[in-house]
Amino acid sequence: MQKGLLIVGSVAFDDVETPAGRRERSLGGSANYFSVAASHFAPVHLVAVVGQDFPQSHIDYLKARHIDLSGLQQVEGDTFFWKGVYGPDFGDAQTLETKLNVFEHFSPEVPKSYHHLPYVFLGNIHPALQSQVLDQIQKPLLVGVDTMNFWIGGESAELAKLLKKIDLLVVNESEARLLSNQKNIYDAVNHIKKMGPSIVVVKKGAHGAMLFHPDGIFSIPAYPLSHLVDPTGAGDSFAAGMMGYIAKHHKHDFKTFKHALIYGTVMASLACQGFSFDRVMETNESEIEQRASVLRKMISLD
Amino acid sequence: MQKGLLIVGSVAFDDVETPAGRRERSLGGSANYFSVAASHFAPVHLVAVVGQDFPQSHIDYLKARHIDLSGLQQVEGDTFFWKGVYGPDFGDAQTLETKLNVFEHFSPEVPKSYHHLPYVFLGNIHPALQSQVLDQIQKPLLVGVDTMNFWIGGESAELAKLLKKIDLLVVNESEARLLSNQKNIYDAVNHIKKMGPSIVVVKKGAHGAMLFHPDGIFSIPAYPLSHLVDPTGAGDSFAAGMMGYIAKHHKHDFKTFKHALIYGTVMASLACQGFSFDRVMETNESEIEQRASVLRKMISLD
Repeated sequence: MQKGLLIVGSVAFDDVETPAGRRERSLGGSANYFSVAASHFAPVHLVAVVGQDFPQSHIDYLKARHIDLSGLQQVEGDTFFWKGVYGPDFGDAQTLETKLNVFEHFSPEVPKSYHHLPYVFLGNIHPALQSQVLDQIQKPLLVGVDTMNFWIGGESAELAKLLKKIDLLVVNESEARLLSNQKNIYDAVNHIKKMGPSIVVVKKGAHGAMLFHPDGIFSIPAYPLSHLVDPTGAGDSFAAGMMGYIAKHHKHDFKTFKHALIYGTVMASLACQGFSFDRVMETNESEIEQRASVLRKMISLD
Repeated sequence: MQKGLLIVGSVAFDDVETPAGRRERSLGGSANYFSVAASHFAPVHLVAVVGQDFPQSHIDYLKARHIDLSGLQQVEGDTFFWKGVYGPDFGDAQTLETKLNVFEHFSPEVPKSYHHLPYVFLGNIHPALQSQVLDQIQKPLLVGVDTMNFWIGGESAELAKLLKKIDLLVVNESEARLLSNQKNIYDAVNHIKKMGPSIVVVKKGAHGAMLFHPDGIFSIPAYPLSHLVDPTGAGDSFAAGMMGYIAKHHKHDFKTFKHALIYGTVMASLACQGFSFDRVMETNESEIEQRASVLRKMISLD
């Protein structure tokens, strides 16, 4: 079997305003964040679409990080655009503008060279497109999925079909409640597991994350940060650190997953400390390991 | 030095309504919750006031749990009364009615037999009364304090005086932010530490709790509960499990404190599963240890 990670998702330009400042035409999108963050751990194979306005310099950067771009379509038109603003608590962003642009007619095509990858992550895009990716490939060892309130509310039938085919769902607390129609998070997760995924990871922002695995529950705090810059892409970077760790170690048992949550949390913390993926780009193994060690100490009883 | 725990606080009748039901003239109050919960761990010595309407049967129960009532004043008038209602998410209660009754003229008197107790917890009452207790006793090994938004907003000068004399402050997140005027929890805790206490414990409800100790930070999730009955007294029971564990082991180093947070979390979970202290009363060592073991597994990387 091949090694590495298949990721499908969006690549975007973001106009972002946070209490720490603002940036225009910031590079973003779920697949972009995921690829850059996961490339610190394992070979990444990307499926996404960009327009002709997309900078060659960034394509060169992704290549330099050994991200396989065989599945990146560059087509006529402009790249997906999102504009959002964060409130004083850096909570959920308010979307001010979305232009689908080339994403409107995106039909993911998985290159043959990706067909036997063991680990797959379907970033937050339309659940029908997520399913379309799965239909093109051999059954991987682990399929992880991200989604959002927009699809849970508006595409529940497509999402239900997808959930039957996956192993891992990564959602935040409000998404878990909306998807399950359960207020209590344990009830919500039990409900979601009946919809398909045997593993659920619930992201809780500043309160960390929880792993619900068939072998048990694991809880991890957020990395201690006193100064945030821009939380955009933190969820994608979290999933990337987690899936990257799993792909690197080529295991996905409970213990490996627990450590994977630590590395997900580290990558999310880096994403929050800069606009776009400034900090996720510039980090290195030594900084990642140092942060992982801080997190391990925060839950150590010794 | 003597063994055991001095606790001062309120004893009350509560009318409580939660999404799980309602109960009238439920036994409550911070000192009451604390004493019952801590008595599972160590000898408790109580300072509080009740009126003549207070049931002898409950006094007999406290005695049967070896709670020292030498400091319990029973005076002319009615016992402190609180009426509150919880919303659908079991978050902060809305107070509908408060009758101070005998609490209005309460002046805590610490019996001589309590003067050398090593561990002291000042439950949530007026900070001037909390100080008054400290002024009557020898310097203990560890003084812990609970407070609330009402005192933080209305009695900030008295509270500031008290904070200079204590070791440990136990607050929830919104109290930490209000007291420090800092939004970020790490900034808030750093600010509070400058006000006096070297140790701060931040309670986060369903998101668990965090310990900020001079030797490091420790984070613990809440005990997994899918069905809550009444969260009244959960904070007091948390503090009781924590202080009880410390008094039992007669140590308060970082490692002991971490384990103490586990037992605090266990006692808080029991408090939430019944009205009044129904579940805190009926629990036993075996159930407490079983829940502590569940929590330890939730943060174990093995």
